[in-house]
Amino acid sequence: MKRLLAMISLAACSGCGLVGDRSGADGKIVEAALNQSRAYEKLEYLTDRIGPRLAGSAGLDNAVLWTVEEFRRDGLEKVRTEPVMVPHWIRGVETSRIVVPIEHTMATTALGMSVATPEGGIEGEVVEVASFEELKVLGERVAGKIVLYNKPMVRNGGERDGYGAAVGMRGSGAVEAAKLGAVATLIRSLGTASYRLPHTGAMGYEDSVPRIPSAAIAAEDAELIHRLLAKGDTVRVQLVLGCRTVPDAPSANVIAEITGRERPEEIVLIGAHLDSWDLGAGAIDDGAGVAVVMETMRLLKSLGMTPRRTIRAVLFTNEENGLRGGRGYAEAHAGELARHVAAIESDSGGGTPLGFGVSAGPGGVEVVRSIAAALKPIGAREVTPQGGGADIGPTRAAGVPQLGLRQDTTYYFDFHHTAADTLDKVKPEDLARNVAALGVMAYGLAEREAPLPRLPASESER
Amino acid sequence: MKRLLAMISLAACSGCGLVGDRSGADGKIVEAALNQSRAYEKLEYLTDRIGPRLAGSAGLDNAVLWTVEEFRRDGLEKVRTEPVMVPHWIRGVETSRIVVPIEHTMATTALGMSVATPEGGIEGEVVEVASFEELKVLGERVAGKIVLYNKPMVRNGGERDGYGAAVGMRGSGAVEAAKLGAVATLIRSLGTASYRLPHTGAMGYEDSVPRIPSAAIAAEDAELIHRLLAKGDTVRVQLVLGCRTVPDAPSANVIAEITGRERPEEIVLIGAHLDSWDLGAGAIDDGAGVAVVMETMRLLKSLGMTPRRTIRAVLFTNEENGLRGGRGYAEAHAGELARHVAAIESDSGGGTPLGFGVSAGPGGVEVVRSIAAALKPIGAREVTPQGGGADIGPTRAAGVPQLGLRQDTTYYFDFHHTAADTLDKVKPEDLARNVAALGVMAYGLAEREAPLPRLPASESER
Repeated sequence: MKRLLAMISLAACSGCGLVGDRSGADGKIVEAALNQSRAYEKLEYLTDRIGPRLAGSAGLDNAVLWTVEEFRRDGLEKVRTEPVMVPHWIRGVETSRIVVPIEHTMATTALGMSVATPEGGIEGEVVEVASFEELKVLGERVAGKIVLYNKPMVRNGGERDGYGAAVGMRGSGAVEAAKLGAVATLIRSLGTASYRLPHTGAMGYEDSVPRIPSAAIAAEDAELIHRLLAKGDTVRVQLVLGCRTVPDAPSANVIAEITGRERPEEIVLIGAHLDSWDLGAGAIDDGAGVAVVMETMRLLKSLGMTPRRTIRAVLFTNEENGLRGGRGYAEAHAGELARHVAAIESDSGGGTPLGFGVSAGPGGVEVVRSIAAALKPIGAREVTPQGGGADIGPTRAAGVPQLGLRQDTTYYFDFHHTAADTLDKVKPEDLARNVAALGVMAYGLAEREAPLPRLPASESER
Repeated sequence: MKRLLAMISLAACSGCGLVGDRSGADGKIVEAALNQSRAYEKLEYLTDRIGPRLAGSAGLDNAVLWTVEEFRRDGLEKVRTEPVMVPHWIRGVETSRIVVPIEHTMATTALGMSVATPEGGIEGEVVEVASFEELKVLGERVAGKIVLYNKPMVRNGGERDGYGAAVGMRGSGAVEAAKLGAVATLIRSLGTASYRLPHTGAMGYEDSVPRIPSAAIAAEDAELIHRLLAKGDTVRVQLVLGCRTVPDAPSANVIAEITGRERPEEIVLIGAHLDSWDLGAGAIDDGAGVAVVMETMRLLKSLGMTPRRTIRAVLFTNEENGLRGGRGYAEAHAGELARHVAAIESDSGGGTPLGFGVSAGPGGVEVVRSIAAALKPIGAREVTPQGGGADIGPTRAAGVPQLGLRQDTTYYFDFHHTAADTLDKVKPEDLARNVAALGVMAYGLAEREAPLPRLPASESER
């Protein structure tokens, strides 16, 4: 630890020319984060004591109450909730099994917001596709059948072979299959490990298209169907889902601030989402982000570091199956968004921080890079163009520069949206480094004389 | 492949002095295994079409029927079944949850042969231990409570930190806890990965000790209990098991032979176990072994390679929860065991072969090493003292030299006894290499003029 701190001092010094009077501040923040972080304790409480936090659940309500109390205990300012109505989807029974040519029970979980099957389930022949292009080729041959979207994810595969390549099939797969007359959809779990673990996630319907039930199956079960089909067999599956959507429930975004000393009306927003899926404890998604944001606030406050502008923490409700928290925030604060100089989201897990992704106006990446230079000793100074997060996304249209705190996601999609998203997947030292990274960046952007260049209108709609 | 085959020829030549007239045979076997192995196809049928094969299940019955047919299709000799009665344990409902200080459903599976809980379950305070020594220290303080055996397994941890260190707690944990008045036991799943996946396995009772229900929970859930206890909380758990044991069921060992050309009455046994746990498809445990044994027989037969002695394949029934197949074989063949010159078992998964473990008389390891030298090109020539397998173990008392085909087990205990023990965990090329290794060793031992030195009486009871 001593050697690391010595490196931080050196980095702070060598960066003096770039970061000006922030250099002392950077070192102080990093040192305090590495030595005094309570992020893990916060995450432990959130995951072990409160547990899963799906929109509409008692868990999410408890999380709102606890984070308010915790922000107050930590001495933050203007701690408050802002009400948001959220979808209320309830899981219920979820089973599927192959009934022809063999009897085989699959590891299954409903996709979030799916409708139920008729009581007793739905049975049909399975048609397998790996893309919407393949679905289109099949056309109406999928009528009356169950479509299986079966595209394996490659670890660190990027957009083409990673989450980005498959998540569209999870979100719109039911709509596209139903347009062709399919009666249900299954999707190979979007994950990078094979431990017979189904991954849930959000899906959606369109008003003009029949709503068909939609579930994820474990990678192993998708591969089994693939092999049976490859041998020329007809495969029939029975799917039973008991999920239902009840009227919207009240929830809230939780907000806390450190009021700026010179321009309190200008805001650097740091955020994460408080809700989680119901299968696990929401440790990596996004308890880690919540803990890092909360601890960053506590630490800056306890260090007595009051930057030029206000730093506002927002713990968004209902990212997973509605984005109501993010949308609600942007609406409620529409009049203020012109004075949001940046929004930073942490929603990529609890791995060690690597740096930031940035969507800002010309020169913005360079500004962020100059601030992140102080994070060299903890390996978090990599700044790349394009960044942000789902919850802060709705502020984009107002030109608010968007930053995403980037973590090592090597194992993130092993556990994402599963029952295995639990505290043990997160290391205290990684959380502490994330606090250091977020603290340096938030303070830097709030302290810097000139605000970060805003997103030009041409880019703000992306 | 060409380069590998060239290496094999070289190795065969350079080993001429050691292996005598086997050198040509070795190369032929290895080349055929690498190029013509149908082991994966056999495993695919066994796992995808027949599926799990717990003693007493239709799956095991189907596996007996299919392997008999397959041996016959492959032209083997004296294909037959030898009846064995096996335990018939049926899983039923299995749930557990923490009810104090939080509400939390755990990932749970009954240990094989456990009794049920009373209807409605059993509830009790949890006491955590990591060893029988710790249990002894607690003594009668565990009376009326649920004992959690919580010892993490380290990947490739060897006896001390691996399976060997924890399996005793799975097998005898209920007895030892019940002696002190505990009402149930839980065990942290014996596994090297944490994907919220419970690992089942056998446990036993003693007639004089009350039979208490016993289940495994996922590593994550054991860690959660550990953290709650570490904070000073009382933890209460409710366990519901509906498993039951019904009267023994008929089953059989499946046998096939290649009759020796000079000493047909002398036998080299190669074996694996046909049964599996019920949660997965029994691919690595021990479908892989079954496929390798069957394919080794097919290949030797199809190559027209008839060694001096008989090679006998035995697919044992009921290794997992009774060892009735292994015991039944040793009893039925008691009069013949003096003429068993070696028994080789494959029951360590479907990873690439590393070599053999050997328990034999003085000089036996060196003999096996000389035969295994031909396996250098496929990386399988490592021969270590001590070896064998559970099913062939009962032949040990008669002095039969025991060999275990050793595989790379790096990921074996990630999947062992879980729902994720499925075909996708095995690579065709690894199975082919195992066929090469087993083929060379079985042929070598059956062909070699002098038999392998038998186990001395002092070691045969170990």
